[in-house]
Amino acid sequence: MTYELHYWPTIQGRGEFVRLVLEEAGAPYVDVARLPEAEGGGARALAETLARLRPPPFAPPVLVSGVLVIAQTANILAWLGPRHALAPADEAGRLHVNQLQLTIADAVDETHETHHPIAASLYYEDQREPARARAERFRGQRMPKFLGYFERALQDGAWLAGETLSYADLSLFQLVRGLQYAFPKRMEALSATIPRVLALADRIERRPRIAAYLASPRRLAFNEEGIFRRYPELDGV
Amino acid sequence: MTYELHYWPTIQGRGEFVRLVLEEAGAPYVDVARLPEAEGGGARALAETLARLRPPPFAPPVLVSGVLVIAQTANILAWLGPRHALAPADEAGRLHVNQLQLTIADAVDETHETHHPIAASLYYEDQREPARARAERFRGQRMPKFLGYFERALQDGAWLAGETLSYADLSLFQLVRGLQYAFPKRMEALSATIPRVLALADRIERRPRIAAYLASPRRLAFNEEGIFRRYPELDGV
Repeated sequence: MTYELHYWPTIQGRGEFVRLVLEEAGAPYVDVARLPEAEGGGARALAETLARLRPPPFAPPVLVSGVLVIAQTANILAWLGPRHALAPADEAGRLHVNQLQLTIADAVDETHETHHPIAASLYYEDQREPARARAERFRGQRMPKFLGYFERALQDGAWLAGETLSYADLSLFQLVRGLQYAFPKRMEALSATIPRVLALADRIERRPRIAAYLASPRRLAFNEEGIFRRYPELDGV
Repeated sequence: MTYELHYWPTIQGRGEFVRLVLEEAGAPYVDVARLPEAEGGGARALAETLARLRPPPFAPPVLVSGVLVIAQTANILAWLGPRHALAPADEAGRLHVNQLQLTIADAVDETHETHHPIAASLYYEDQREPARARAERFRGQRMPKFLGYFERALQDGAWLAGETLSYADLSLFQLVRGLQYAFPKRMEALSATIPRVLALADRIERRPRIAAYLASPRRLAFNEEGIFRRYPELDGV
């Protein structure tokens, strides 16, 4: 069965965590909003679809599989992972991977807050000063805390959950590349402390299906409308 | 088997969503950090426990059940719910409830940001001005959006997932009471638009086990160290 992914067509955003799993799995899917408008694509059609789906999602991404309508990124991945051998077979392992995914989601949320500390509905330019203050603490306290946590989680094996590649590894790759895009100076300064995290991101990037995806037009570039934005004034060692 | 809950002993916080499920289920549990220090309670012992548990949690709450160590609130509830008849029996229903729970978690995160828009590690007093700006948008845009979403979700039945009480209903109760504590003026102004949400909170509060819990010393009071804080300057119609 072909999955339908419904997500904003011009950003990686939270949809990218779903795209990476579908690509690594080699699963057939349609990234609906990225179709030409004549075929149902575009942001306006996406908004109409979101209003029509049942149960109603609060926000995209949404994955549709037959009669199932699944929203919230971690929820989608917890369902997709076991179907595509991207989650451990045992209960303890699955709980661990979901916990890691939710922690990655927290890091992603906090990354977004660095450029929108007052309101997502305001322009960045209208919240530059608090953004600078928030980003300084994010770089100094939160980035080492999150990345150090994942570094320790990788002490016991090649992948976050040990011996088996899971969807959380794909998400950690995306978090790392996003932080490197948004905070290149800070990530360079931290690099000596997170060798396992950086090596995992490199290993993911070299996997054949992921490499093919990243080289394809399906992979959108990072940009200043997404979660990970390169505003030089928010970066620093 | 008796569950162990590990969470900060002086606040409701995210641990409260777990406590409510355990209480409604009538499940035997020990709220470990709330024990006397001589019996292993207190914040220092909690920090030591968190450092010792495997797999390591990023932050509390953590639920321990036998050999399972489960962190991240939504992860804990997705595991507890089906074990205690507080989740639908079918896959679509469980995915829906987890999606609702993750959306409640987003609302909880954004509530915390209203008093800590720059950094959780700074005092509120050191971020009063951005807090005022953030809270204004939260009251004006985000509260109606989140609460309106849950109001619509309740159009099809007495509970969020339809016919069956689920852990997401218990969490929505906590979110509503928390917002009423933190933003009494704003919640009063919104009340006419969210009758189903308010009625659900009242129904939850009258359930015998929840009522007994709320009247017991096990229920901590809302306070200005938790997620929902009453700072009058952040409230408004």
